[in-house]
Amino acid sequence: MANPTFASDRADAVKPFQVMALLSEAQQRQANGQDVIHLEVGEPDFPTPEPMIEAGMQALRERKTRYTPALGMPELRERIARYYEEGFGVSLSPRRIALAPGASGALLLLTAARLNPQDQLMLADPGYPCNRYFARVFEAHGQLVPCSAEQAWQLTPDDLRTQWAETTKAVLVASPANPTGTVLTAAQLTALHQQTRQLGGELWVDEIYQGLNYSSEAHTVLSVADDAVVLNSFSKYFGMTGWRLGWAVIPEGWESAFERLAQNLFLAPSTPAQHAAMVAFEPDTLAILEQRREILRQRRDYLVPALRELGFGVPVSPDGGLYVYADASRFTSDSLAFCLQALEETDVAFTPGLDFGDYLANTHVRFAFTEELPRLEQAIERLSAWLPRL
Amino acid sequence: MANPTFASDRADAVKPFQVMALLSEAQQRQANGQDVIHLEVGEPDFPTPEPMIEAGMQALRERKTRYTPALGMPELRERIARYYEEGFGVSLSPRRIALAPGASGALLLLTAARLNPQDQLMLADPGYPCNRYFARVFEAHGQLVPCSAEQAWQLTPDDLRTQWAETTKAVLVASPANPTGTVLTAAQLTALHQQTRQLGGELWVDEIYQGLNYSSEAHTVLSVADDAVVLNSFSKYFGMTGWRLGWAVIPEGWESAFERLAQNLFLAPSTPAQHAAMVAFEPDTLAILEQRREILRQRRDYLVPALRELGFGVPVSPDGGLYVYADASRFTSDSLAFCLQALEETDVAFTPGLDFGDYLANTHVRFAFTEELPRLEQAIERLSAWLPRL
Repeated sequence: MANPTFASDRADAVKPFQVMALLSEAQQRQANGQDVIHLEVGEPDFPTPEPMIEAGMQALRERKTRYTPALGMPELRERIARYYEEGFGVSLSPRRIALAPGASGALLLLTAARLNPQDQLMLADPGYPCNRYFARVFEAHGQLVPCSAEQAWQLTPDDLRTQWAETTKAVLVASPANPTGTVLTAAQLTALHQQTRQLGGELWVDEIYQGLNYSSEAHTVLSVADDAVVLNSFSKYFGMTGWRLGWAVIPEGWESAFERLAQNLFLAPSTPAQHAAMVAFEPDTLAILEQRREILRQRRDYLVPALRELGFGVPVSPDGGLYVYADASRFTSDSLAFCLQALEETDVAFTPGLDFGDYLANTHVRFAFTEELPRLEQAIERLSAWLPRL
Repeated sequence: MANPTFASDRADAVKPFQVMALLSEAQQRQANGQDVIHLEVGEPDFPTPEPMIEAGMQALRERKTRYTPALGMPELRERIARYYEEGFGVSLSPRRIALAPGASGALLLLTAARLNPQDQLMLADPGYPCNRYFARVFEAHGQLVPCSAEQAWQLTPDDLRTQWAETTKAVLVASPANPTGTVLTAAQLTALHQQTRQLGGELWVDEIYQGLNYSSEAHTVLSVADDAVVLNSFSKYFGMTGWRLGWAVIPEGWESAFERLAQNLFLAPSTPAQHAAMVAFEPDTLAILEQRREILRQRRDYLVPALRELGFGVPVSPDGGLYVYADASRFTSDSLAFCLQALEETDVAFTPGLDFGDYLANTHVRFAFTEELPRLEQAIERLSAWLPRL
């Protein structure tokens, strides 16, 4: 009865992150007193900003600990809608905002609400690995399309045209993207939207790194495509990772399906997190977040040329996000072995490309700039001494 | 592209709670100044106990806001395992505790990990309505088996034997149950476990109302069946509904599948909630919870005979939980219309049986004792004046 070999087919199909083995090795080394530099973790190193901490504590003081409606508190849905108005000049009904346990929860609702078994969800390879598994757990499929550095690792209208299948239902792009940090311009989003619409599909845009933009101001696909679906989160730019609160912006008419799914699958998102998030868009908070953005920009500006100098290829500089996706083909054709060896011999931890898809995955690695600048310099020094010995 | 008619088949299959229409009517009336007595809500009226509030605030003060491991903090998994040891004399490896966003999240992981498309999950009717939809969203099916008051609304070994199909994979029972409050004894659980095992299936036990026991001490299926799966939650007995934190106890060997699914679908459960939950099992907290249990017992002891006196049938008194499931056949054969009329004419809100299944659903209603005793008395007075006029 407890036989693990009887796990569902979907559970067997969902693979572990390669980085988990690396993480556990890194933790082991750290427990043994080694000074590990963590460039493998996809989480900002800043704590939640003071105003959200204070708002969260205030909610607890006032015993605001009961369930909220399934798609979130009306006042937070309104506040997020206002953020799109104030920040991007986009008018939205609050009914189009669906809060969930993280952007993961929002993508779970979206996938459940839109994909039938055997449908395909087109995805860029490299990309966030979980996306394909959301499709898989609902008996649909991720349709990975190799995206080269020449196209900034992003899907193009041409890819959509040539790769679209009878079963393709939607395409999910990310801007800024993980692991590559590349951003889709408004013109590119417009073209992708038009192409998707022509093909009779849906355009889903992962904007969870929105705000972590270094080369231009943050923008949203909703400025150019009112019926695109957006995924966003309080985790990355807003620094609320552990609170688990994200949202989807959905087209008019979808609210009922999302609400019914959310009622059944989640009941509601976290109440303390929602109260904390109420102040995420206030000027005090945004001032803190903009300082952090500047710090992250400095790290990126240091890390990209430093990696290039070591012999890594960075054909497209990241415009946003938290990562540099680097070509390590000069050093390896087995990115996991390379990462593990680097960890063992330099105590610098970074992530093998295998975690982001298949395309060129064995020759690429991802560095997160989620440690302070002096630590990044130290990491580069260590790698600089180590790489020539390979 | 934004055409809501293209929602997935699963989204169309997931029905809204009937109580939502009632809730929105109740809120409307309340907004208009009516004094609505809420006996429709499945949420204790007590706030989170002080020790958890304080622990949550302390975690925020210390900026403990980052991701935890996917199945929860090791120290909380250990603490929960210790709770089973101390509370029930059951020894468990902490690796068998999987934390998730609510018991809902835990059931989502369980269903995803164990059920293949077309598998069936046997469920008691009446029962918690979401359970069948967890199966449905993963392309499996809830197999509703009518359970009469004579069998305390619970599945029996005989039901399992006679209803088991080739495709039946698991059976989910609840103790204390929602909506009926009935409890399965250790002997009954043993018999269900043996029968399930003989049939080659898995026994899943919803223990989310554990601790809200009024006729006997709380117990767990794990005392009699080490390889049963348990769902539990910090929501009900522990008073942490809005924090969204629950857990599953899974058999040895299942951890990897749960961990991979949780990594992908949830990333991790809420960090502040986990820190708050660390003190849920401490003596100070348990003293508060036991006081609350006594208050709930008094409410139950008032409500059951009072409803009987009004002409409702309560053939099985609830041993636990938060509800009285009452036979209203003397008054109606349309439970939804009856509830709506009662709300409109008395401002007492309670839930139609339709939300809990098909069996006798049109002649039954659920009263939650989640308001204070004087309010329950007021509700009974209002109904007492109203029912004879029907």
